[in-house]
Amino acid sequence: MEPKKFLILGGDNRSIELANLLYEDGHNITISHIEGLNFRDCHIIIGPLPFTKDNKTINAPFHIEKIPIEIVFESMKKGQVLMAGGIADEQMKKAMKYGIELVDYFDREELQILNAIPTAEGAIKLAIEHSVITLHNSNVLILGFGRIGKILANMLHGIGANVYIAARKVKDIAWIKSLNYKAIGFNQLNENVGDMDFVFNTIPSLILTKERLEHFHRKTLIIDLASKPGGVDFMQAEELGIKVIHALGLPGKVAPLTAANIIKETIYNIIEERGI
Amino acid sequence: MEPKKFLILGGDNRSIELANLLYEDGHNITISHIEGLNFRDCHIIIGPLPFTKDNKTINAPFHIEKIPIEIVFESMKKGQVLMAGGIADEQMKKAMKYGIELVDYFDREELQILNAIPTAEGAIKLAIEHSVITLHNSNVLILGFGRIGKILANMLHGIGANVYIAARKVKDIAWIKSLNYKAIGFNQLNENVGDMDFVFNTIPSLILTKERLEHFHRKTLIIDLASKPGGVDFMQAEELGIKVIHALGLPGKVAPLTAANIIKETIYNIIEERGI
Amino acid sequence: MEPKKFLILGGDNRSIELANLLYEDGHNITISHIEGLNFRDCHIIIGPLPFTKDNKTINAPFHIEKIPIEIVFESMKKGQVLMAGGIADEQMKKAMKYGIELVDYFDREELQILNAIPTAEGAIKLAIEHSVITLHNSNVLILGFGRIGKILANMLHGIGANVYIAARKVKDIAWIKSLNYKAIGFNQLNENVGDMDFVFNTIPSLILTKERLEHFHRKTLIIDLASKPGGVDFMQAEELGIKVIHALGLPGKVAPLTAANIIKETIYNIIEERGI
Amino acid sequence: MEPKKFLILGGDNRSIELANLLYEDGHNITISHIEGLNFRDCHIIIGPLPFTKDNKTINAPFHIEKIPIEIVFESMKKGQVLMAGGIADEQMKKAMKYGIELVDYFDREELQILNAIPTAEGAIKLAIEHSVITLHNSNVLILGFGRIGKILANMLHGIGANVYIAARKVKDIAWIKSLNYKAIGFNQLNENVGDMDFVFNTIPSLILTKERLEHFHRKTLIIDLASKPGGVDFMQAEELGIKVIHALGLPGKVAPLTAANIIKETIYNIIEERGI
Repeated sequence: MEPKKFLILGGDNRSIELANLLYEDGHNITISHIEGLNFRDCHIIIGPLPFTKDNKTINAPFHIEKIPIEIVFESMKKGQVLMAGGIADEQMKKAMKYGIELVDYFDREELQILNAIPTAEGAIKLAIEHSVITLHNSNVLILGFGRIGKILANMLHGIGANVYIAARKVKDIAWIKSLNYKAIGFNQLNENVGDMDFVFNTIPSLILTKERLEHFHRKTLIIDLASKPGGVDFMQAEELGIKVIHALGLPGKVAPLTAANIIKETIYNIIEERGI
Repeated sequence: MEPKKFLILGGDNRSIELANLLYEDGHNITISHIEGLNFRDCHIIIGPLPFTKDNKTINAPFHIEKIPIEIVFESMKKGQVLMAGGIADEQMKKAMKYGIELVDYFDREELQILNAIPTAEGAIKLAIEHSVITLHNSNVLILGFGRIGKILANMLHGIGANVYIAARKVKDIAWIKSLNYKAIGFNQLNENVGDMDFVFNTIPSLILTKERLEHFHRKTLIIDLASKPGGVDFMQAEELGIKVIHALGLPGKVAPLTAANIIKETIYNIIEERGI
Repeated sequence: MEPKKFLILGGDNRSIELANLLYEDGHNITISHIEGLNFRDCHIIIGPLPFTKDNKTINAPFHIEKIPIEIVFESMKKGQVLMAGGIADEQMKKAMKYGIELVDYFDREELQILNAIPTAEGAIKLAIEHSVITLHNSNVLILGFGRIGKILANMLHGIGANVYIAARKVKDIAWIKSLNYKAIGFNQLNENVGDMDFVFNTIPSLILTKERLEHFHRKTLIIDLASKPGGVDFMQAEELGIKVIHALGLPGKVAPLTAANIIKETIYNIIEERGI
Repeated sequence: MEPKKFLILGGDNRSIELANLLYEDGHNITISHIEGLNFRDCHIIIGPLPFTKDNKTINAPFHIEKIPIEIVFESMKKGQVLMAGGIADEQMKKAMKYGIELVDYFDREELQILNAIPTAEGAIKLAIEHSVITLHNSNVLILGFGRIGKILANMLHGIGANVYIAARKVKDIAWIKSLNYKAIGFNQLNENVGDMDFVFNTIPSLILTKERLEHFHRKTLIIDLASKPGGVDFMQAEELGIKVIHALGLPGKVAPLTAANIIKETIYNIIEERGI
């Protein structure tokens, strides 16, 4: 790829890491909180993940003053592209009104897949940290067989856990068997959860209801990886004395440099596909 | 599942294995070439895989006389279901005219996934058999990352090969990396094939063209798993002295009992889904 | 095994876990700090790990008063066996003088092997915790291919790290290759350490000397698993800005219940071998 | 290593492969059946594996005339070394009388370890070939946890078999557990063999006796990898209708080039250690 001019707009440490990685690859980098909001000359503006936390200003903790989203949209010139992560529909529509090319890198499937790697490692770290037994030779149940479920299963199997996966689709059950895990249908969950040492939830809906939690053993550690509000009846779990950890945003916490690298690779893919 | 009455219609040894497995599960079984074409009383008729080889009669090598497809369609009664494998559109349309419920079990995704297991083992056996080196520590390239590609990669990695996978989609490249294989884009194939000891093709189109084969090392063994006509320019490969094995129908050859079991499980899924 | 009478003598939480596990298996248990130092009737006395911290009294943090080792030796009767962990030669000799049967369960090879499992998990947790990248796809070097080296390599490979192992013996190099890791001779260390993201030391002698550390990249995380004084020139590492974690006693910290279970199984093996 | 002069003495295709490999590494090679028994000038004479089949002459199938061992010993000069494989004590003693430096490369542990790789692959090929089910998801029992047992277990686990290992030593049981296989004591064999789909024997003594075979299921496939006379009561197995394959010399059959490479590496180790 030919060297490009990037403006790194807002963001936290991960944006700094990303700026370094782009610089190491030979690109020209301007960092907004150091060198100011200089939109001139740059080809691509890299916004933070998430894009905004208040729906009004850019997520830019290192800036002293707030940066209204409108200011950014107004400052952009023809031919410039703004890439950021986790952009709400509202902002997307606004960008369209301004005629701005706005791309959500967090929406890209390759990023979601690769982000599942630090997420899985973070979950493994939490499991080792918060239990009195080893993952090795323990019974581990993963709820859901999407990106995180698949990669977490692969790692837990590699550490030596007995991996059970709960899935709905006949097709997923076939995949689970073919990859040497034990498949559990959702209708068989209640009979099986009592034998589990660890349960990892990846399904973003209330899957561990009051009723299901009653079949759990108290010693079981639940790690909920589903985005807010998660998949566990937390109140009920607490009442039953079952430990639950709701782990969010693991890639940025557990492996910020790897996470920045994944964003960089995704940005490169977007650039290539769009011929920027 | 409640015991059902099955008529096993035509088929080869795999149909006999399937009849035994259904019988062991407590079902009532009639085998057509032994007990005649008795369509009365049975709930489900299990046809062979493939359903027909001449587009006119049932694939029934153990029968002395040919069984025209029309005879079967005419003999079937309301409420009966015919399940067979690899049914052409022509037969499907004909069945509709007769008002027959005809289901293709070979079309089901779970069967295709599970069939990839004996296919992968068969490919591994061929690779060990037809080379002077071990798979362990060899460079192995898989073309395509669909069902067979994924399961074959998992097994070859488990044996200790260095697994490279060629894929097109950015999403597949991410999956390949996340599962610890090395990803090769199709545009990088020519630079990389020369280092490969084994190449397994799973893509059903001419992927190893004359031009691409010229970048191969002569010692490389190619195993083509794609259905006819395969993905290799066989003439050119022969001219260049590159060994190619076009391996078809591996599940039935390598593991007929496992293959029968997979069909059985698929039939059970169909029964459950349709409430038969 | 027939139920036996155990006196749990001293020890920390792990001894309590062990008492529970023995109780669950149907044995009769007396716990010294609750029920007093009642040596009568018991078949086997289970001392702590380590046996003593001051070479004079039993390691017994839950006891209000110190328990001199001599008192224990004097109180024991013919036919009773004392099993404890990490017993120094001095105590062994003293026990012989008293005619006491004293067995060191920490000395047993099966315990050392099984203890390598929680040690490896603890090391993995530390590696995830103290780095900005994932273990997956990182370059990981293990110094030594003994118990911990072998089990740690297996787990790291399972998580998706690129595993390099430094070993001296030609025989170990062959094992390393046969298990799909990359072998590095000790004379090639200096050329290779610069590419490593993580280095795990398992060799209990000064292996990472001043001179060797100079070939390290500053970003490398060193986790030293060797017992005191460890295998790293810690001062030099600090000077060079290389992060080192000296991790000791991981089984008890990371997985006390698993650790207690390992001790229990070892005690059972001792009982069976000695026909107690 | 500096280029050396090798005389390749006798041997079959593997010796030719070895000659090629040494030549590719830059050494000077003379092949006895082509260029004659020219002992002059060479540093190292590489004899075949096995050294002799009749205890009198060199194993040299490509030579028209027999080569008596004595002639070789007499022809050798001071400073020359003869390396061959599988040398009987008788020949070793004779060599000493002649003052000849004779080294058995087949005796070396690294060769034995690395040879277990093609042996394991050959066993896997036979298992796939001679059964009607897949190795994946089958129950597989390995008798013995030495070199072949360890490497075969690793590969079978990688393919997705449920791996059981029978071992005697408490220490081996711990290793088996720590590597995620299921351990079976020899006293529990009879209760467990009935559930096995495949049994691989690696123990060179009569382990599958008449009595033990009676607990087998008839469908079980036994692959005996132990050197002659093997570890199975073959007559009894035949009587019971249990299929047994006694597989010998797999490295040379399954992967002659890999096998030659292993010999080459071993020869290099001998050269280095002896400072030749």
